[in-house]
Amino acid sequence: MHVICDLCVVPLGVGVSVSAQVAACQEVIRESGLEHCMHAYGTNIEGPWDEVMAVVKRCHEVVHDMGAPRITTTLKLGTRTDREQHMDDKVTSVEALLRSR
Amino acid sequence: MHVICDLCVVPLGVGVSVSAQVAACQEVIRESGLEHCMHAYGTNIEGPWDEVMAVVKRCHEVVHDMGAPRITTTLKLGTRTDREQHMDDKVTSVEALLRSR
Amino acid sequence: MHVICDLCVVPLGVGVSVSAQVAACQEVIRESGLEHCMHAYGTNIEGPWDEVMAVVKRCHEVVHDMGAPRITTTLKLGTRTDREQHMDDKVTSVEALLRSR
Amino acid sequence: MHVICDLCVVPLGVGVSVSAQVAACQEVIRESGLEHCMHAYGTNIEGPWDEVMAVVKRCHEVVHDMGAPRITTTLKLGTRTDREQHMDDKVTSVEALLRSR
Repeated sequence: MHVICDLCVVPLGVGVSVSAQVAACQEVIRESGLEHCMHAYGTNIEGPWDEVMAVVKRCHEVVHDMGAPRITTTLKLGTRTDREQHMDDKVTSVEALLRSR
Repeated sequence: MHVICDLCVVPLGVGVSVSAQVAACQEVIRESGLEHCMHAYGTNIEGPWDEVMAVVKRCHEVVHDMGAPRITTTLKLGTRTDREQHMDDKVTSVEALLRSR
Repeated sequence: MHVICDLCVVPLGVGVSVSAQVAACQEVIRESGLEHCMHAYGTNIEGPWDEVMAVVKRCHEVVHDMGAPRITTTLKLGTRTDREQHMDDKVTSVEALLRSR
Repeated sequence: MHVICDLCVVPLGVGVSVSAQVAACQEVIRESGLEHCMHAYGTNIEGPWDEVMAVVKRCHEVVHDMGAPRITTTLKLGTRTDREQHMDDKVTSVEALLRSR
């Protein structure tokens, strides 16, 4: 099962800046070799379900290991069986519609 | 790693009513034996990370098997290392604060 | 436009416990007079769109006024035009399906 | 109150493809004049709270007007009082940390 997800990991109890923890999660994501794209409120990741979910778990482990006592994560998960779809396809198909108007 | 999650599975391409698919997910959750509590916009589930995530995956598999070609899920995941916490504790501690005012 | 929402307000930079801020949001919600129901990972609220959104904004204002320098909120918003639906209806229809199996 | 949000509008009861509705939301967002950036699982938008929230409401209205009987939206909302922050700042600060390792 292929999944396109949007991951937003929020550490609590580490102060107001969370960029160090977000950067550590980016490294976890990069090391996974999965397709991904960071935006201002999370990161899109796609790949086989178990591999994507291993990344999410690893992010929690790494951020706790950095000293964050608490984490709250928001995750969106998209799967489909009618056809193959990748992250770029989603953006491209919307942009094509916008151009045709 | 213990996790408290909030799971909201939304099937697309099955029409406007999604209660059959939500009920199927409830059965998956019940069969897992994990603590859970359904509300009007999702279900709280808690337990060991891998068991909770197996439930989320199983929900996607079951809803696709029912004929939904596409699913979009929203998942919140809370973990903490400073102390043990359960779903009831979270509600109870807020209610205690409200009573003391 | 009637909306059923699920609101989860997370203050950052206030330490690991956020129950005081969550309790303050509960008071905002109660004072609104809107139907609501707290669970372990948020609060369901329903009512007219503008009233519900005024509650969400007021929660951010109150939590900042308590000293939280940063807030990240997750909000799910459900609207429908085919028929009237309330929070209880959603849970009831799923439970009816589960009983009939 | 300045807000950075992530908006993901999902129409139900319109079939498996939702790109027409997503494109319509993009037009609403563009017409608002607010800073925004679409990704594969939503759109980041930033600006004054009331203007951003007017966009979210308008998206629901427009998508219902296109014939969608039901919508479920996921919205993340970030506000902070300690300093001004824009969407680009969030990505830039994480990327700077990643380069310095």
